[in-house]
Amino acid sequence: MQTSRKPIIGVMGGGTVGQEVEKSAFEFGALVAENGWILLNGGRDAGVMRASAMGAKSKGGLVIGILPGFQKTQANPFIDIPIITGMGDARNVINVLSSDVVVACPGGAGTMSEIAFALKNKKPVILLNFDVRPFFIGYDLLFVSTPVQCIDVIKSCILKN
Amino acid sequence: MQTSRKPIIGVMGGGTVGQEVEKSAFEFGALVAENGWILLNGGRDAGVMRASAMGAKSKGGLVIGILPGFQKTQANPFIDIPIITGMGDARNVINVLSSDVVVACPGGAGTMSEIAFALKNKKPVILLNFDVRPFFIGYDLLFVSTPVQCIDVIKSCILKN
Amino acid sequence: MQTSRKPIIGVMGGGTVGQEVEKSAFEFGALVAENGWILLNGGRDAGVMRASAMGAKSKGGLVIGILPGFQKTQANPFIDIPIITGMGDARNVINVLSSDVVVACPGGAGTMSEIAFALKNKKPVILLNFDVRPFFIGYDLLFVSTPVQCIDVIKSCILKN
Amino acid sequence: MQTSRKPIIGVMGGGTVGQEVEKSAFEFGALVAENGWILLNGGRDAGVMRASAMGAKSKGGLVIGILPGFQKTQANPFIDIPIITGMGDARNVINVLSSDVVVACPGGAGTMSEIAFALKNKKPVILLNFDVRPFFIGYDLLFVSTPVQCIDVIKSCILKN
Repeated sequence: MQTSRKPIIGVMGGGTVGQEVEKSAFEFGALVAENGWILLNGGRDAGVMRASAMGAKSKGGLVIGILPGFQKTQANPFIDIPIITGMGDARNVINVLSSDVVVACPGGAGTMSEIAFALKNKKPVILLNFDVRPFFIGYDLLFVSTPVQCIDVIKSCILKN
Repeated sequence: MQTSRKPIIGVMGGGTVGQEVEKSAFEFGALVAENGWILLNGGRDAGVMRASAMGAKSKGGLVIGILPGFQKTQANPFIDIPIITGMGDARNVINVLSSDVVVACPGGAGTMSEIAFALKNKKPVILLNFDVRPFFIGYDLLFVSTPVQCIDVIKSCILKN
Repeated sequence: MQTSRKPIIGVMGGGTVGQEVEKSAFEFGALVAENGWILLNGGRDAGVMRASAMGAKSKGGLVIGILPGFQKTQANPFIDIPIITGMGDARNVINVLSSDVVVACPGGAGTMSEIAFALKNKKPVILLNFDVRPFFIGYDLLFVSTPVQCIDVIKSCILKN
Repeated sequence: MQTSRKPIIGVMGGGTVGQEVEKSAFEFGALVAENGWILLNGGRDAGVMRASAMGAKSKGGLVIGILPGFQKTQANPFIDIPIITGMGDARNVINVLSSDVVVACPGGAGTMSEIAFALKNKKPVILLNFDVRPFFIGYDLLFVSTPVQCIDVIKSCILKN
């Protein structure tokens, strides 16, 4: 009767990004679902949050959105489970702590804060075409350039833990 | 492809409660799952949190646990999706905001804080054998004495919203 | 060179209260300042928060306001140090944890949540004309009916700690 | 009777830093106090938090520490007002939101998260010998190499606001 928990893959990334980044986030979300993992992101109806959720739902995945505001209506239509924090940016900490692996797509300061928190909390962090390695010297950061590569690295992270 | 979101029923209640309360929380959790709703609680391995999650899993439900600490290991074995906040008691606010309906079983100060937050945020609050109505004068609080009655009241709340 | 820390007295209470309650909060704030203690409250420009801050400033005290929103402009004009949380109701936890002694004036659900958190975190809680003792059976709650009595009880709490 | 609020200068920076960085943080803290401003930092008894607080107290300043844990004992001995959040890293958001100007000394991932939050919330950010400008392309980041320069830039920020 106990549940056998599925890995939760956190996808971070900007709310305002180019089409290429959205396409990559969509593909990555679809692969997360195909692997039977849960996708978690910041839940808003924009950029990487919307695209990765849409990708996961296109393959019947389960998607959790950790929202900064007070209303479920803030969630994009591909979020199955909106977690409403009412805590603004402080919800970024929850995004990271709740993820077994953190994947960072291109983004701005919000995404940077999530990478920083993930490293501080010793989560595996994979950069998907977002190379900020020079700025976190002394930390262990993995870089991949395609969604498929990212999935392979996640598999090795999950096996290790 | 859009998701059709299932109602999230938040179950609050003490970590240290009597057997009758745990039995009632288990039954209620089972009924939540049978109705196809998602159960959300505070996730720890004690009292109402454990019993209601166990009840929901006994009927194949989906259970979310919003945890106060930093580790997934704090979750009871019936939590499918542990949300790790690292925010201590402040996670009680998230419990309430993320629930479409809040059900309060007997508990202590933590449960009282959740009822208070739910009322402040105008969530429907149903007291399941925990009659604190005299202490929240001027607020709209529903009281039921059995899990089955509770389900009926939830149905009317969901229809209204 | 080390600082000798002054006691921080947290004053909780409603944003919408009667004139008698505001008068009592003002008097109490003035007494806190006269005793050389720091006054901490929820910082907004209403009810007990405004009145107690005004009282403390009338005697040259130092007042900290822990604000729920994102803007310093939310603070009443008697707050010396606005702490901006952007966390909504979750800031109630910070109000309580940061106080050496918690004093609760009459209020609604927000005040109830603060009393609950204070008890859960084993802070001394003094009810100033707000008798919710029947509500928190099994917890240690002190009741006083005047600001002067309240000061006497605070003194005994501070000596103990 | 209204208070005339003093500017709050937030000092971010690592818990483990070299002697040069601590010396600079101390000097900067002293200058903040000499200018009659309030110094705010993360409050712990380490690195930039301890050094900047000690500097400010050496000139009779007022120091606020926003602490991640649950205990006032976590504060360094130069903190006048320990704000206890019990929220772990989420307190970094409060550090930033409560500051009128954010100064970042060298640090690790925690400091990076604070710079990111400050930029996201459009706070003036001054980098004191911590050049992460290439990291935050498209954001307005000021760089200075000495505490004295930093004070000059703060003055211009305060005048603007």
